[in-house]
Amino acid sequence: MSEESPRKLRYAMVGGGRDAFIGAVHRHAIALDGMAEFTAGALSSTPERAVMSGRALGLVDSRNHGDWRALLDDELRRPADERVDFVSIVTPTDTHFPIARAFVTAGFHVVCDKPLVQSSAQAQALVEAVAERKTVFGVTYNYTGYPMVRQARDMVRDGTIGTVRKVVVEYNQGWLATALERDGNKQASWRTDPARSGIAGALGDIGSHAENLVATVTGLEIETLVADLSALVPGRQLDDDASVLLRFRGGARGVLVASQINAGLENDLRLRVSGTLGSLEWRQERPSRLVHYRLDGAMTVLTRGSPWLSASAQLASRIPAGHPEGFIEAFANIYRGVFADIRAKGAGHAADPLETDYPRVEDGARGVRFIESAVESSREGKWLAFGPGHAAG
Amino acid sequence: MSEESPRKLRYAMVGGGRDAFIGAVHRHAIALDGMAEFTAGALSSTPERAVMSGRALGLVDSRNHGDWRALLDDELRRPADERVDFVSIVTPTDTHFPIARAFVTAGFHVVCDKPLVQSSAQAQALVEAVAERKTVFGVTYNYTGYPMVRQARDMVRDGTIGTVRKVVVEYNQGWLATALERDGNKQASWRTDPARSGIAGALGDIGSHAENLVATVTGLEIETLVADLSALVPGRQLDDDASVLLRFRGGARGVLVASQINAGLENDLRLRVSGTLGSLEWRQERPSRLVHYRLDGAMTVLTRGSPWLSASAQLASRIPAGHPEGFIEAFANIYRGVFADIRAKGAGHAADPLETDYPRVEDGARGVRFIESAVESSREGKWLAFGPGHAAG
Amino acid sequence: MSEESPRKLRYAMVGGGRDAFIGAVHRHAIALDGMAEFTAGALSSTPERAVMSGRALGLVDSRNHGDWRALLDDELRRPADERVDFVSIVTPTDTHFPIARAFVTAGFHVVCDKPLVQSSAQAQALVEAVAERKTVFGVTYNYTGYPMVRQARDMVRDGTIGTVRKVVVEYNQGWLATALERDGNKQASWRTDPARSGIAGALGDIGSHAENLVATVTGLEIETLVADLSALVPGRQLDDDASVLLRFRGGARGVLVASQINAGLENDLRLRVSGTLGSLEWRQERPSRLVHYRLDGAMTVLTRGSPWLSASAQLASRIPAGHPEGFIEAFANIYRGVFADIRAKGAGHAADPLETDYPRVEDGARGVRFIESAVESSREGKWLAFGPGHAAG
Amino acid sequence: MSEESPRKLRYAMVGGGRDAFIGAVHRHAIALDGMAEFTAGALSSTPERAVMSGRALGLVDSRNHGDWRALLDDELRRPADERVDFVSIVTPTDTHFPIARAFVTAGFHVVCDKPLVQSSAQAQALVEAVAERKTVFGVTYNYTGYPMVRQARDMVRDGTIGTVRKVVVEYNQGWLATALERDGNKQASWRTDPARSGIAGALGDIGSHAENLVATVTGLEIETLVADLSALVPGRQLDDDASVLLRFRGGARGVLVASQINAGLENDLRLRVSGTLGSLEWRQERPSRLVHYRLDGAMTVLTRGSPWLSASAQLASRIPAGHPEGFIEAFANIYRGVFADIRAKGAGHAADPLETDYPRVEDGARGVRFIESAVESSREGKWLAFGPGHAAG
Repeated sequence: MSEESPRKLRYAMVGGGRDAFIGAVHRHAIALDGMAEFTAGALSSTPERAVMSGRALGLVDSRNHGDWRALLDDELRRPADERVDFVSIVTPTDTHFPIARAFVTAGFHVVCDKPLVQSSAQAQALVEAVAERKTVFGVTYNYTGYPMVRQARDMVRDGTIGTVRKVVVEYNQGWLATALERDGNKQASWRTDPARSGIAGALGDIGSHAENLVATVTGLEIETLVADLSALVPGRQLDDDASVLLRFRGGARGVLVASQINAGLENDLRLRVSGTLGSLEWRQERPSRLVHYRLDGAMTVLTRGSPWLSASAQLASRIPAGHPEGFIEAFANIYRGVFADIRAKGAGHAADPLETDYPRVEDGARGVRFIESAVESSREGKWLAFGPGHAAG
Repeated sequence: MSEESPRKLRYAMVGGGRDAFIGAVHRHAIALDGMAEFTAGALSSTPERAVMSGRALGLVDSRNHGDWRALLDDELRRPADERVDFVSIVTPTDTHFPIARAFVTAGFHVVCDKPLVQSSAQAQALVEAVAERKTVFGVTYNYTGYPMVRQARDMVRDGTIGTVRKVVVEYNQGWLATALERDGNKQASWRTDPARSGIAGALGDIGSHAENLVATVTGLEIETLVADLSALVPGRQLDDDASVLLRFRGGARGVLVASQINAGLENDLRLRVSGTLGSLEWRQERPSRLVHYRLDGAMTVLTRGSPWLSASAQLASRIPAGHPEGFIEAFANIYRGVFADIRAKGAGHAADPLETDYPRVEDGARGVRFIESAVESSREGKWLAFGPGHAAG
Repeated sequence: MSEESPRKLRYAMVGGGRDAFIGAVHRHAIALDGMAEFTAGALSSTPERAVMSGRALGLVDSRNHGDWRALLDDELRRPADERVDFVSIVTPTDTHFPIARAFVTAGFHVVCDKPLVQSSAQAQALVEAVAERKTVFGVTYNYTGYPMVRQARDMVRDGTIGTVRKVVVEYNQGWLATALERDGNKQASWRTDPARSGIAGALGDIGSHAENLVATVTGLEIETLVADLSALVPGRQLDDDASVLLRFRGGARGVLVASQINAGLENDLRLRVSGTLGSLEWRQERPSRLVHYRLDGAMTVLTRGSPWLSASAQLASRIPAGHPEGFIEAFANIYRGVFADIRAKGAGHAADPLETDYPRVEDGARGVRFIESAVESSREGKWLAFGPGHAAG
Repeated sequence: MSEESPRKLRYAMVGGGRDAFIGAVHRHAIALDGMAEFTAGALSSTPERAVMSGRALGLVDSRNHGDWRALLDDELRRPADERVDFVSIVTPTDTHFPIARAFVTAGFHVVCDKPLVQSSAQAQALVEAVAERKTVFGVTYNYTGYPMVRQARDMVRDGTIGTVRKVVVEYNQGWLATALERDGNKQASWRTDPARSGIAGALGDIGSHAENLVATVTGLEIETLVADLSALVPGRQLDDDASVLLRFRGGARGVLVASQINAGLENDLRLRVSGTLGSLEWRQERPSRLVHYRLDGAMTVLTRGSPWLSASAQLASRIPAGHPEGFIEAFANIYRGVFADIRAKGAGHAADPLETDYPRVEDGARGVRFIESAVESSREGKWLAFGPGHAAG
């Protein structure tokens, strides 16, 4: 380890003003390790709110913009040693594509919220832009930042549970059990609005996390699926409940549930993966535990911070076992991977895969294709093929 | 309460010899309350095994038969005050129909294991026979005998969680994760054999419990479904994994999973029901708890034996809260309901619905239609209508 | 295994009439395995209640007595092949000694509730009577009948967790958080009455279970102790809360808590044993799990019914893993051990230690000495030596 | 809320260099909310290590000192607008007193680790110094920063569970189950060394947290106690296991266990408080839940982030319910309280009690008296009075 402290990275944020839930989470996560500092922003689509938010958050006026285009222009005018290293995009989904494309095209590294964009055509364009500019592009599928999710992935990949046969992933919330969007709730309002969220509601907002969790942990590719998307709260325009049956290449089967109308539930993301030799079970609301059921022995419960975990799980941990880490730390792990990649790129050396463990633009693109396929399957009421071919179609 | 102890009922068992898991469970459950005594039997389809088992279990030779037809003949020859009051049928599924029909037709009360029979035509015939002979006919969907399942049902029915919108039921086991049927395991052998189990494997064996649990707790009727049944252990002839999406009359949505290849899992039956005002969650492996999530308040955890439970839940309990009751007690509750109905019929007075709370032949018939519909949907790879019309078709 | 079914044992019960909690538990436990039948009784200290209870429970009049002396006289008059094989004594503590001594002296096998008697002098006399008559004498420290308690004991004894250093046992209930004894509650009334319960309340009623659990699982002998007994509900005459620090021979340390005023708690008996190589944790309210923390590896959770458990734990189990067994089954395991011992004695052959695994009169006697020592320590406000010498003093 | 972002506070750290566990926790906790920046330090008692650590953590050379006295001198030389606002002291216990006293006397605000100092005489001197200089002085009893601990406190204080009768607090760890201190483990080494830790080991290190948790949640004052402190790992000089019986003013009873030899346990701090109307249970390893058992109703489980929690519990939360917060967030809450108090003092206005909710120097002083009393009780093998009088004596 170098004895010299590396310089802090500088970042700008687009969206995430004072009433936004996720903006604050990104800032807490970035702050946690003290490796980057909040330097510039365009924190709202409403210029006055943007400026007011930036001021309250301590941005200097010259870098506090009312509009993301102004931010981009200003950054491009600045000398390299003032310019931000990366931009975090935490706006509603509809604006992800233009903003992300503009910053990538201008050569900036980007971290973008999920779902990545609103169509697979946009996703494809973004994947190509990133490939061309060779920028770092992270997608905050933050749940894969949990140490025990990484442990699960590593145990699946190293064969601990044998060949995967069955995956059940559920992401159940209750906060949209009533028509909050009609009560002026800002979060509910954009998430249930097709203009801002795109073609999917719950499936896009949280089903995308579920899809990514499955892909990350198992590496399985969906072959066909049948989905049932419903708006169970009367008058809602987008699905608030989605259930999907999955068939994976190679024969494994899966079930994915994403629902925001389970009155009283909080943030119940859970995954169970069964293989020929054992099963793994993880729950986001108790994230430091990974239950390992075994074909021929007592179940074991692996806990965060233990020395017998995989290198990746250990690296994702900050404090000793038994001292709970949570959502912000997991989120910060995604950022830490992005930072390591930015530094590697800056230094011109190859990235260490262990250090640069974060979801890429391609993961985001696959997530968009999943949303499209599930929406189409539900609309047509039938099984559909899924895959690169489909997305390209 | 009467000061006089009622006479013990007498029963015969068909199947359930010494190696059978479920026969012993039935006998323990019947013994628990000391209300019936084991009087006669034909405990195996192999005459010598039948007789040997009966002797080991204390049957006198004159009532220990090598064959269920001999048992029936013998019973019919005996005077009423020697004859058994009911017959428990615990054989593999293929023989349920002829045995059950014969005993019902002869006027005996019957308790039969699930799935009831192998086709909805058989089921319909049995329903009609029972209706004609007005006998008592219980189906051992034993999980509905748990006090907290009854509490869940009563809370759904009394509107505590509002209108039901979503149901997720899973029944996950791991014991068939390997090809046990090829190692001479008797349980595995008949359950994976189409000749003895019929058209479904896991779906019939445990999916039927899941279907019944949903119907019992919610009262919802399935309108359409799409199922994916797979034999994930190579060479297996019947499904060992089944996932089904459900649409209920009135708009609620559901997911049903029944899988026996989750290596390391034991008997993980779990139900979550979400309504407009709250959600309920129950797990068979921790059966004394019912979690009630509420739209507008902290979750409560209801526990067996509490004075604030419904009358039905309280009646299903034998010992104080905190002193765990389990599977056998739940099973015994089904029998207790049957016994009360037999006594009421014997006494010629109306049955008390609270005392005679047990699954009927009609529940068993609906379960068979569910299996048929799901198998057909999976075979054809599409959504299918479900309902009385379908079953009749 | 013999192909012949052994004859059912016959038993009498003293106490345990219709309002008594524990009498019904004993009867359910005995009934479960169908190995003994309820033949005679003197079910209450009030003759009319005794007779009424016996009738309601199906005793024939000739064996339904108003008084335990009448029961004993009647039994002695009967020929051996009518006589009961054993007597279950489930009365309040004050009458245990005369009843148990009389039956033992007359040569009957006895099962007696805990605490055994009211003084160590009585206990000693009973131990001697049993030794002289060579009868079977079981004490229903029923919690040691749980399979996972036996597993814990076997893991401690075989060195799995190394040398034991620390034991924490708690038995917390809430049912005496109010002055129930003044509301006519029969259970509360005798348990808080020095005339019927003796010198201790909570410590005697449930602390005795805690002491036995520690002794059974660890085999450790208490060397010195300091206790703090309190009656926290105003006006109560006996302790409803007890805390004790323990020093064991060999240097291990312990804490024992027995309290009945934890408003809202049910039957929270829990044990943690830490050794040089690991720790074990068991909770009665989730009895099928035994958590094994390990010095150098992930914790494992052992579950009832698994093939990798000790022979003793496996034998204590009736149905497959994942199908919850509970309090009654554990209770029945104590009886099963007693039955095996009665049969061995009857057959004149040596008892199989595995089959005859139940708490003896000596365990009950040690429990009485523990109560006496703790009461004395609390009264004097100081550490006291504990041991055979003390008890004899 | 002001639209202006307040300036970031500046802080220095004494101790907490690169190998120290707790220094990093303090820095993460401070960083989390972005309200203070790390400006100066003397990060080790070894000058070269101090300087190397400071450089690696990004301190500029002019504020990176080899010794805390040099740090203090340098700070005093600087103009007020460069000077640090507070100093965090995270050294082994033996140096807390001189360092804390020096900075307080010089007028600096201080945050100091627990246990506060090594004797009640030192504690008293420090209390007086703080009173005289009117500085802010926080003690990082960090577990009281958890939202659900604050909720428990508020529920006890508002009478939800009635009058408290019984408290059981346990702090069990396993990391000192072997003689780590002889393997060069730095944490183990100073914690088991009387010269650096003072008169107590486990009792001082973690028992002090347990004592503070009880005092914070219940407000009860210990009247008398009897303690049993043991060094269970051969050769260890300080207790690694401590059990204490407590009698509180007003009649409540308590048990406190602090043990570091429970092989395999992680950081198992748990509290149960029983009152006349209900009981509360909290576990640090699952910190977002508070179980509320009720005398007359089903138990409720309160969760972090819920709108029905107390103002104090809500304020201590950063992200929505179901998104786990952990140890660092709780730690940061202590700092947030200190920061609010520093700002209030700086602005010359009265502190808002809700905003300035953190443990003070007096809490630290009481903790030291508790340690002294328990050590003395254990040494003398008897019950001892505890209280201000005792400490002063």
